[in-house]
Amino acid sequence: MTIAKTAVLGAGGYGTALSWPLARNCRQVALWSRNRSLVDAIQRTRRNPRYSYLSRRELPRAVSATSDLRAAVDGADLVVVAVSASGLADVYASLSAALTGARSLPVIVGVSKGLTGDGLLPDQVCRRAFPGRKVPYVHLAGPAFAQDIVGGAIVGLVAASEQPQARSVAEAGLAGRELWVYPWHDVIGVEAAGALRTVLSFVFGALFTFGDDVSRSTKAFLLSRVVAEMARFGLAMGGDASTFGHDTPAGLAVVGDLYLCDDPGSRNWQLGRLVAQGTPPVDALRQLQGVAESYNNARTIRSLLEHLRTTDPGLELPWCEAVYAVCHAGVPVPDAVEAILARADRRR
Amino acid sequence: MTIAKTAVLGAGGYGTALSWPLARNCRQVALWSRNRSLVDAIQRTRRNPRYSYLSRRELPRAVSATSDLRAAVDGADLVVVAVSASGLADVYASLSAALTGARSLPVIVGVSKGLTGDGLLPDQVCRRAFPGRKVPYVHLAGPAFAQDIVGGAIVGLVAASEQPQARSVAEAGLAGRELWVYPWHDVIGVEAAGALRTVLSFVFGALFTFGDDVSRSTKAFLLSRVVAEMARFGLAMGGDASTFGHDTPAGLAVVGDLYLCDDPGSRNWQLGRLVAQGTPPVDALRQLQGVAESYNNARTIRSLLEHLRTTDPGLELPWCEAVYAVCHAGVPVPDAVEAILARADRRR
Repeated sequence: MTIAKTAVLGAGGYGTALSWPLARNCRQVALWSRNRSLVDAIQRTRRNPRYSYLSRRELPRAVSATSDLRAAVDGADLVVVAVSASGLADVYASLSAALTGARSLPVIVGVSKGLTGDGLLPDQVCRRAFPGRKVPYVHLAGPAFAQDIVGGAIVGLVAASEQPQARSVAEAGLAGRELWVYPWHDVIGVEAAGALRTVLSFVFGALFTFGDDVSRSTKAFLLSRVVAEMARFGLAMGGDASTFGHDTPAGLAVVGDLYLCDDPGSRNWQLGRLVAQGTPPVDALRQLQGVAESYNNARTIRSLLEHLRTTDPGLELPWCEAVYAVCHAGVPVPDAVEAILARADRRR
Repeated sequence: MTIAKTAVLGAGGYGTALSWPLARNCRQVALWSRNRSLVDAIQRTRRNPRYSYLSRRELPRAVSATSDLRAAVDGADLVVVAVSASGLADVYASLSAALTGARSLPVIVGVSKGLTGDGLLPDQVCRRAFPGRKVPYVHLAGPAFAQDIVGGAIVGLVAASEQPQARSVAEAGLAGRELWVYPWHDVIGVEAAGALRTVLSFVFGALFTFGDDVSRSTKAFLLSRVVAEMARFGLAMGGDASTFGHDTPAGLAVVGDLYLCDDPGSRNWQLGRLVAQGTPPVDALRQLQGVAESYNNARTIRSLLEHLRTTDPGLELPWCEAVYAVCHAGVPVPDAVEAILARADRRR
């Protein structure tokens, strides 16, 4: 399958990084950003100056940056949407307007992690922007730092879509010798795992402030228990049990992605650290550049929890509730950790 | 439940480390080693001089070292067997002889990872030593470095036994505020995961020699795919699917333990590094002090594989086969990695 044209909406680290594998498989890659000065800088220097790992590398020839969304997606077979969850509704509204006259929709590949403030998963935000149309949506997830994709490391990603044809297009656009793409059927399970993952990054950052006392054994313990929390949340949201089962490539988006949580480069991790050091959450958010989704996701997941418990009364997400308590209810980090340690029912 | 006396067979790092949590719950802990000069040193200095993290800490008062196995296990409610898989048969033979006259057997807690050369799992070695008797066997596994147990880090372990009463005794002997013990029913699944885990440690060590090029993304990819390999092997061996499923405490012994694989302190990891650097496997084994189980386990699992395929023809364990090829068939590490990259069916 040859792909003539791909558009990438969002010239952040991840969107820009994906333009490398895309440029190997597609004749033309349009990298869109609404930020004109960024687009100008990329076009002039052939580099994205925003991130050091990107600024060191010239973009592939097939890539051209633009701030004209309509031009970017015109004739594209594949549109990668790489903006944060909070920016999704705006971008999909623009995309929908640009595609109003199109006979068929391109395959849309979403990479955002997390939920919108009103509890929608990324695919739901996308579908709402195209009422009455069947959207060939693919959710891409898995453990791949942007710098590792650019650097040509061997990485694995899951392309989740209920539509086999859409999965194949995403695979044809992205897969290569270094980037392995595993097609998968369960969009919701993969998205829900991603949402909880942002919250766990906060936890690792917060624990870091306890210093060297947080052993690798403790982290491994935390990680394996939070996999269970991801699964509980994913199933309650309507995800498929197989996504969280054994011998599944979807594990890339669950345990694989979780493995990268403990990452000082992550804004969620940084937020956790700042808050655990005593910075009030709102001030910590202000100090950080860009978006730390964990703050909003912890609140959104907690409010979803009440709804989800009407069908699953025993549903418990202790780590997510701990992050909510710390971020939104003024509970100090040591008290939140103590509350988890003191849980009468340690089985969950 | 109060436990009057526990014996720990094996005064290596792990056995000695477990004497701390045991001493909190049991009045008397007998730490046995066949090495008399080690026993003398421990009794004289109240420290185990073999490991720096142990030599820095005085043993709890309840612990006494002995080289008399019969005295060590006499009257014990709980016997922890902490020797390497290759030494199990000998120790169980001695234990069985010592318990010949005993009306009931103590709960036996095995912690060894791996298989014996003839393909037996640790619990099978134990049961063979007690023909005609029902052995209350518990397999203990999970992500806990010995130094972290000694240091009082918060760690989680799985106590797997088909006998609820045996699980409870193990929990009563070991669990505490810092050491969480999760009872589980599937011994074989937990043991099989542990066997494959030793092999993966070799893989991480071998990949290390490629230098900084092995990104964390690649490691996360490897980790999430090998979880699937663990599950395939565990199920083929007769383990329970729930051990590898979602929302299970047994995840501690699967993904949790796997998280600690990439550990330069592990002999399996060191073996992988030496071999990848060009040292012939047999020479590398000789250079390392103590046992690197991955070498034998890769061969044993591969020979089991042929048998397991008679009932599960599609069973594939590519990473285990790669370690076998490198250790026992003279295949250079880069060629083994290349063979995996070139696999036509990347789904497994």
